[in-house]
Amino acid sequence: MSTTAIILVRPQLGENIGATARAMLNCKLDDLRLVAPRDGWPNPAARAPASGADVVLDTARCFDSVAAAVADLDRVWATTARHRDMVKEVATPRGAARQIHDAQANGLRCGILFGPERTGLDNDDVALATAILHVSLNPDFSSLNLAQAVLLVAYSLLEPTDETPDSVLATGGDVAADHAAVLALLDRLIGALDEDGFFRAPEMRPSVVRNLHNFFFRARPTDQEVRTLHGVISILRGSRRSFIDRDEPTDD
Amino acid sequence: MSTTAIILVRPQLGENIGATARAMLNCKLDDLRLVAPRDGWPNPAARAPASGADVVLDTARCFDSVAAAVADLDRVWATTARHRDMVKEVATPRGAARQIHDAQANGLRCGILFGPERTGLDNDDVALATAILHVSLNPDFSSLNLAQAVLLVAYSLLEPTDETPDSVLATGGDVAADHAAVLALLDRLIGALDEDGFFRAPEMRPSVVRNLHNFFFRARPTDQEVRTLHGVISILRGSRRSFIDRDEPTDD
Repeated sequence: MSTTAIILVRPQLGENIGATARAMLNCKLDDLRLVAPRDGWPNPAARAPASGADVVLDTARCFDSVAAAVADLDRVWATTARHRDMVKEVATPRGAARQIHDAQANGLRCGILFGPERTGLDNDDVALATAILHVSLNPDFSSLNLAQAVLLVAYSLLEPTDETPDSVLATGGDVAADHAAVLALLDRLIGALDEDGFFRAPEMRPSVVRNLHNFFFRARPTDQEVRTLHGVISILRGSRRSFIDRDEPTDD
Repeated sequence: MSTTAIILVRPQLGENIGATARAMLNCKLDDLRLVAPRDGWPNPAARAPASGADVVLDTARCFDSVAAAVADLDRVWATTARHRDMVKEVATPRGAARQIHDAQANGLRCGILFGPERTGLDNDDVALATAILHVSLNPDFSSLNLAQAVLLVAYSLLEPTDETPDSVLATGGDVAADHAAVLALLDRLIGALDEDGFFRAPEMRPSVVRNLHNFFFRARPTDQEVRTLHGVISILRGSRRSFIDRDEPTDD
């Protein structure tokens, strides 16, 4: 599967080309193409902001025109911050990412155009594209740095596809305690509470017990945490007894 | 619905605080909180990189500790670039965004912690969070600028929810041509091709006609485009006749 080409059209600042290279490599992209960069190419100003993404800068290719830069591609998306008076499919970054993944799975080569810092792509550039990629932001404050725009789009391409779980419980090598272990802990805790006279209003006991069960099962404790909590119960009861012992000395 | 708080923990560079404010306002966030910024607060170095997001800088609040900064919140996510040896739910930006939207719909106040530039959050900071927000990038090149990390996460919060279509056909005010209009254009085109002797191999005619139908319907032309294409057919036939006229003059 080929990588997605990132095509900067008439970029002005070398710093932004460097920051784009960094954002690309962050997202596993390495095919950078430049169309008529204002300050020529190579541009030493790009080096530092690339923060070590030298491989992207060193293999970047320079073209005279958008048409030349996209000649070997099968599908091209044009990024725009504003809507154009043009009959063209408009995709979200997420939607474009799905289309690009699908196209690449079918062996098609894809690229994404980004316009100059001040003006964005002009309409003739956009007309060369298969579709528009519109990054919808705060309409009252939508100005995005060029490399930030590349990052948002590149991250959408990298973002795990829908099969990736939205969240998982990381346990740092520990294993989740099974239900029996949690129930044993709860039984011990509730037994201790009974012994120590916690339930002064006996009619409240069932709901308190239920709440404790809900709390512990919601927390999904690990084996290590169950052991820690057993230790907590032991020490608290020991302290309490010592405390009572100190306050109310007995003969034995 | 409350906005999501962005909490920068011990940020080092004022420039990054400013760029964070810009990224926040790009994504409609305005509750910026700073925990023990290295160079104090306010910091004039933040102003220019904010690119006009002054409202975010001017209302930013400064705290001595993470605990103080999150005291009024109900749910807190800790962003990390690497996995921690900790028992904690780990969400993708998209997953965390869903959780945050759900929580806010239930009236809960949410915030997201971002660590210092060089080191990220320390484990004691992470332990104060409800869950981890892990931005998964190129494992060989995952270093992300602080404001870029904020942008990726903030954009995930802004990103249209799943009801938003992944792509739509923008028509710039023009209306899609109905099937009858496209069929009339095709009839005229094919009639012209018949008249002008295009189908030299008559057995090929059905498949060529089918291909033309597929092409035009796939392109989903608008009314204006259908009119333009009628004009194209007229002028091409006119030119061709003129061309023939010039090359092969006749008596009439």
